[in-house]
Amino acid sequence: MENTLAYAHSNRARFVTELKQFVSFPSVSAQPRHAGDVNRCAAWLADHLRGIGMQRVTIVPTPRHPLVYAEWLEMPGAPTVLIYGHYDVQPAEPLNQWRSPPFEPVVRGDDLYGRGASDDKGQMLAHIKALECCLRTSGRLPVNVKCLFEGEEEIGSPNFARFLVNNKRALSADVVLVSDTSMLGRDRPAITYGMRGALSLELEVKGLETDLHDGLFGGVVHNPLTGLCDIVGGLQTSAGRITIPGFYDRVGEVDVTERTYMANNGPGDEQLLKSIGASRAWGERSYSLYERTTIRPSLTISGITGGYQGPGPKSIIPARAVAKLNFRLVPDQDPREIERLVRKHIARLTPFTLRTSIRSQLAARPLLVDRANPLVKAAATASRKCFGATPVFVRSGGSNPAVTAFHDILGVPTALVGFGLPDDRIHGPNEKFHLPNFHKGIATSISFLHEVAGTAPVVVSQLRPRVAQQYL
Amino acid sequence: MENTLAYAHSNRARFVTELKQFVSFPSVSAQPRHAGDVNRCAAWLADHLRGIGMQRVTIVPTPRHPLVYAEWLEMPGAPTVLIYGHYDVQPAEPLNQWRSPPFEPVVRGDDLYGRGASDDKGQMLAHIKALECCLRTSGRLPVNVKCLFEGEEEIGSPNFARFLVNNKRALSADVVLVSDTSMLGRDRPAITYGMRGALSLELEVKGLETDLHDGLFGGVVHNPLTGLCDIVGGLQTSAGRITIPGFYDRVGEVDVTERTYMANNGPGDEQLLKSIGASRAWGERSYSLYERTTIRPSLTISGITGGYQGPGPKSIIPARAVAKLNFRLVPDQDPREIERLVRKHIARLTPFTLRTSIRSQLAARPLLVDRANPLVKAAATASRKCFGATPVFVRSGGSNPAVTAFHDILGVPTALVGFGLPDDRIHGPNEKFHLPNFHKGIATSISFLHEVAGTAPVVVSQLRPRVAQQYL
Repeated sequence: MENTLAYAHSNRARFVTELKQFVSFPSVSAQPRHAGDVNRCAAWLADHLRGIGMQRVTIVPTPRHPLVYAEWLEMPGAPTVLIYGHYDVQPAEPLNQWRSPPFEPVVRGDDLYGRGASDDKGQMLAHIKALECCLRTSGRLPVNVKCLFEGEEEIGSPNFARFLVNNKRALSADVVLVSDTSMLGRDRPAITYGMRGALSLELEVKGLETDLHDGLFGGVVHNPLTGLCDIVGGLQTSAGRITIPGFYDRVGEVDVTERTYMANNGPGDEQLLKSIGASRAWGERSYSLYERTTIRPSLTISGITGGYQGPGPKSIIPARAVAKLNFRLVPDQDPREIERLVRKHIARLTPFTLRTSIRSQLAARPLLVDRANPLVKAAATASRKCFGATPVFVRSGGSNPAVTAFHDILGVPTALVGFGLPDDRIHGPNEKFHLPNFHKGIATSISFLHEVAGTAPVVVSQLRPRVAQQYL
Repeated sequence: MENTLAYAHSNRARFVTELKQFVSFPSVSAQPRHAGDVNRCAAWLADHLRGIGMQRVTIVPTPRHPLVYAEWLEMPGAPTVLIYGHYDVQPAEPLNQWRSPPFEPVVRGDDLYGRGASDDKGQMLAHIKALECCLRTSGRLPVNVKCLFEGEEEIGSPNFARFLVNNKRALSADVVLVSDTSMLGRDRPAITYGMRGALSLELEVKGLETDLHDGLFGGVVHNPLTGLCDIVGGLQTSAGRITIPGFYDRVGEVDVTERTYMANNGPGDEQLLKSIGASRAWGERSYSLYERTTIRPSLTISGITGGYQGPGPKSIIPARAVAKLNFRLVPDQDPREIERLVRKHIARLTPFTLRTSIRSQLAARPLLVDRANPLVKAAATASRKCFGATPVFVRSGGSNPAVTAFHDILGVPTALVGFGLPDDRIHGPNEKFHLPNFHKGIATSISFLHEVAGTAPVVVSQLRPRVAQQYL
């Protein structure tokens, strides 16, 4: 392993250059105009995996953006690690707020700036580079490895669960290794054991067929934008409490031991506010900020569009208005049940002078991983060795339907080892990845593979897979 | 006059061709990218006025879009008519809802389709064609005429009042003739004697400096879009009653005689709903729909922008959100006083977790013209002769700061003779102008000039000009 780590060290500059190549693809899965870029990025990734010596590298088409699969299985009897990551990225808008173009990655100081640098290209490339280091220095990996890289994570992994169900046996593994989460700070590594579920809905409010002159008709026509504001206002209080009947029914209370651990090890209120540049907190009073973002559900209106968007005034009553609703859910909330409750409540809030319709865009179940699992512990050990500090077990407020699918369909424990930092601005302008974490991430991945090699293969069925049918 | 009308009749096809040329300029005053188009349209208009024999044709620069002035003053002792119109148009968006491109005018059936066809290019060109008919057939006009055409009406005439104040003497006239309003139907001509005032404000709500990931931070950050919805919801009830303290204090009650005339002659509820393709009314219960749009103020949110606007979901808490507020005001509401009340109320509604700012974009005072004025009556006579029905005196819900400025600064009565139809879809997609109204409008204009020629010049100061200083 010394050899392997030395190889990693002496190739640092080239690894950063390759990361810049990877980030330069505008692989925005949500925007149809970037479909070609997503494909080109997948092709680059497949070539790259072939180049480092991975086998059976395959671009797997889906109804939208392809998966990239690769494997190296020449250690019969040894455990199998399934490495997951996603090569698609969030939309880069608003473009005018970027200091440098989102798809022309540049290094400033210790950070690489570009859309996807941290989420998830930098983090997933760390594992690929770890595989290269092992294969180049010893001609083999310490364990069997399967790689599964997705191109639809940022649009809610619509085709991922089905692929898992259809390929359950081929994807069998002892542990899934994922780096798509955050550390608590530069010297504070973290293993994520809980993620919130997600439900994204698009609400459309319609009035008349066309826009009308608001001078001639203002006062007799119900404006869909006003109606939209009223409906949105009816979904939560101004303090953030969601007012949809039944919404909190399945929200589990977290026990005192865990809340105490969270309070002692997680980010404090001040630290969390500072990391986002906020001076004032908002939300549910009886929970810490860390708890509000992890063990409590939330609703965010992520976009509203309606009427005239240009400069200056325009005299219209718009014909329609659209709001994008992002719910974050916690155990044991079920996104499908929540969607039913939301639809029912919005139907109740819709005045007879307007029409509403709701489109479902993304659903992910909340996730809770067993922290006592030995393979999860192996990740903690590797992380401690390479980052020089014992990692904290954390809950994340984010969602990852793919990770949930591994957990629920394959019944495999997931080691979520984050290399991101809280101030990476993922999903926002000026996203960056802290390059020291890239290099420590590569070392952690190498170390993890060796840790797992020393572990007895675990009975795969220790987690009870849910009925796969529900994903289809 | 027979000759003149015959000339108009035999040149109908050419007049329509010229109107198509005029409409083909995308003279969108609100959109900076169209500034060149506005100038080109002004140049075309000036050339056209020179071509028909008008004198002292001048393009008058303003800080933004130019005015076009022309005159013919060779009838000393005769009354002077000041013709006003505007050659700028509303933005054409949303473009995908147009059956044919907004600036490639086409005739379908009896209608000419294109942005500005009715508002106001078709209506103002009718008067220019009337001048051509008189000058070509008798070498003179029956009265003195001044033309003043504006390029900033759709952005609230920001430089118009100042021009009037500075050129009060040069613009002196006995009556202002304006066609920028609607008839009640194809055979129901109308003279507008009341217009609502307007106040357009842009409200911005700001949270943090950049967008944040709503998974990681949803629940601890006050979302400006949610805040915007709450503020907008605090401006009026869902039934349209405006809840800004003091807003209705200066709203005058209209006397029973006028309300009865309105009920007997104005559009009925069913007719008004049908004209806009609506099945259900909305608004203040104790007023007819016609009254709600004319003698009652209104508030329309004409646009909201915030967060992600593209397809699919995006996981962000946006940093800012913007709403455009259009107030319509009635006598004796003053837009400046209303703006103060709105600012005060929004400051009160702003939570300490967000910041709001308000930009003023347009202000126009409400207008009420004396229906008994003989020159206004002359317009009614001309209209009756050419449309074959006695025109109804109507109030309009629209606003026209330029017309208000004539009334308040020059102290001149205004004859608002509408050639538009209620279903012209002005400001919306597929705006059209009913061509038979174009030709009847030309005849009406010719007839009006002859009617005025038979009227004794009126003492200009019969209206008390307001202190011009308040416009500066």
